[in-house]
Amino acid sequence: MATLVLLRHGQSEWNEANRFNGWIDTYLSETGKKQAEQAGRQLAETGLRFDAAYSSVLSRTIMTINRLLDEMGQSYIPLTKSWRLNERHYGILQGENKDEMRAQYGHDQVQTWRRSYSVLPPKQPAFSPAVTINGQSYPAFDRRYANVAFGLLPRTENIHSTEERVRPLFEGEIIPRLQAGQNVLIVAHGTSVRALTKLIEQLTPDEVTKVEIPNGQPIRYDFADNLSTYQKTFLK
Amino acid sequence: MATLVLLRHGQSEWNEANRFNGWIDTYLSETGKKQAEQAGRQLAETGLRFDAAYSSVLSRTIMTINRLLDEMGQSYIPLTKSWRLNERHYGILQGENKDEMRAQYGHDQVQTWRRSYSVLPPKQPAFSPAVTINGQSYPAFDRRYANVAFGLLPRTENIHSTEERVRPLFEGEIIPRLQAGQNVLIVAHGTSVRALTKLIEQLTPDEVTKVEIPNGQPIRYDFADNLSTYQKTFLK
Repeated sequence: MATLVLLRHGQSEWNEANRFNGWIDTYLSETGKKQAEQAGRQLAETGLRFDAAYSSVLSRTIMTINRLLDEMGQSYIPLTKSWRLNERHYGILQGENKDEMRAQYGHDQVQTWRRSYSVLPPKQPAFSPAVTINGQSYPAFDRRYANVAFGLLPRTENIHSTEERVRPLFEGEIIPRLQAGQNVLIVAHGTSVRALTKLIEQLTPDEVTKVEIPNGQPIRYDFADNLSTYQKTFLK
Repeated sequence: MATLVLLRHGQSEWNEANRFNGWIDTYLSETGKKQAEQAGRQLAETGLRFDAAYSSVLSRTIMTINRLLDEMGQSYIPLTKSWRLNERHYGILQGENKDEMRAQYGHDQVQTWRRSYSVLPPKQPAFSPAVTINGQSYPAFDRRYANVAFGLLPRTENIHSTEERVRPLFEGEIIPRLQAGQNVLIVAHGTSVRALTKLIEQLTPDEVTKVEIPNGQPIRYDFADNLSTYQKTFLK
């Protein structure tokens, strides 16, 4: 038996402000901090003990996972912060207000960019290091990606390309831990949690586009029989 | 050029309550949380960018380093939580009130146990897993040390044995990073910071027993010439 818990980070300042976050680094709102602590208390009540924890390299998942583990008294668990768990890169939409984008491009187009498995939003331009969007550099010039090969850094993503980016981490690190009977916690983002859900449950593209991932609500998978079967539980 | 910042964690609940902490896991007091954030703001003002961060596996250093890195906007830095940076194991003194120990053993004896380079406090008994001290198991039965060989787990320590326990991490991980020009942050404890100071500055046993390490005050070393010279600065 091994357990995997997936969690979308608590509400961020930009979730609250109705802006597209993507790879832009924003902090948790006060509501988001409370959601993280609440998720920690819920998980503590289950008596679950984690062996390893994973977040993205964006502050909203790190702030969530640190608060959650503090609340569980399990802050000593090794934490891997991986760019592969980042939110999808939202191309030119990053940093923009959702309503303004709907006014500019139309509701249907924006909805397609948000939810289509395979349609990509227009690419973020290849800025020079001096040019920033909402105060932040293009990923290639952001030091948190200094160890990531240039060719791997996206300028736009959809659910499919996010899944392909998450997959090496899932297959290379998460599955081996679960096979060894370890309990793993992953705090990620709407689209990266969706991608993990697809990989675990072997969903079709059509099915994964319909999956809703609320902020701060733990999704628990209890695996058996060398991961061939699982029970899925939502902690509310 | 490479920079190393050493920091003793912010005030813990037991620093506040005048009890010997040692390897017993306690949380930051409200003062300690503020000290961590203050240290983060001080370091942010220097413009320093860290490449790697290290804490012990005790909550008071992890709570400190997470708050500090949040405050600096550098929470994405890889963090290694190592038992080798733990506070010294305080033997039978762990969990006890300092004044009560002085009443029981005499002021001079307690002062010798606290400050002697080579005298060891009496060993913690080898408890069974069922027996806890202040609600916590003997380290050998605490899952945060599950990957540490039984023979390495202490039942009492002084400055010297703490130094010998810190040394493999310092020589094996910290020095190579500094030699590669990386900036490293270490948040540890009174005695483990003292031990690091001795290793860096090549202090004598007599000198290291006189070093005072206040909570939450960053000590900065700027190294040059392949670590053969350094400048030491206290951030206040």
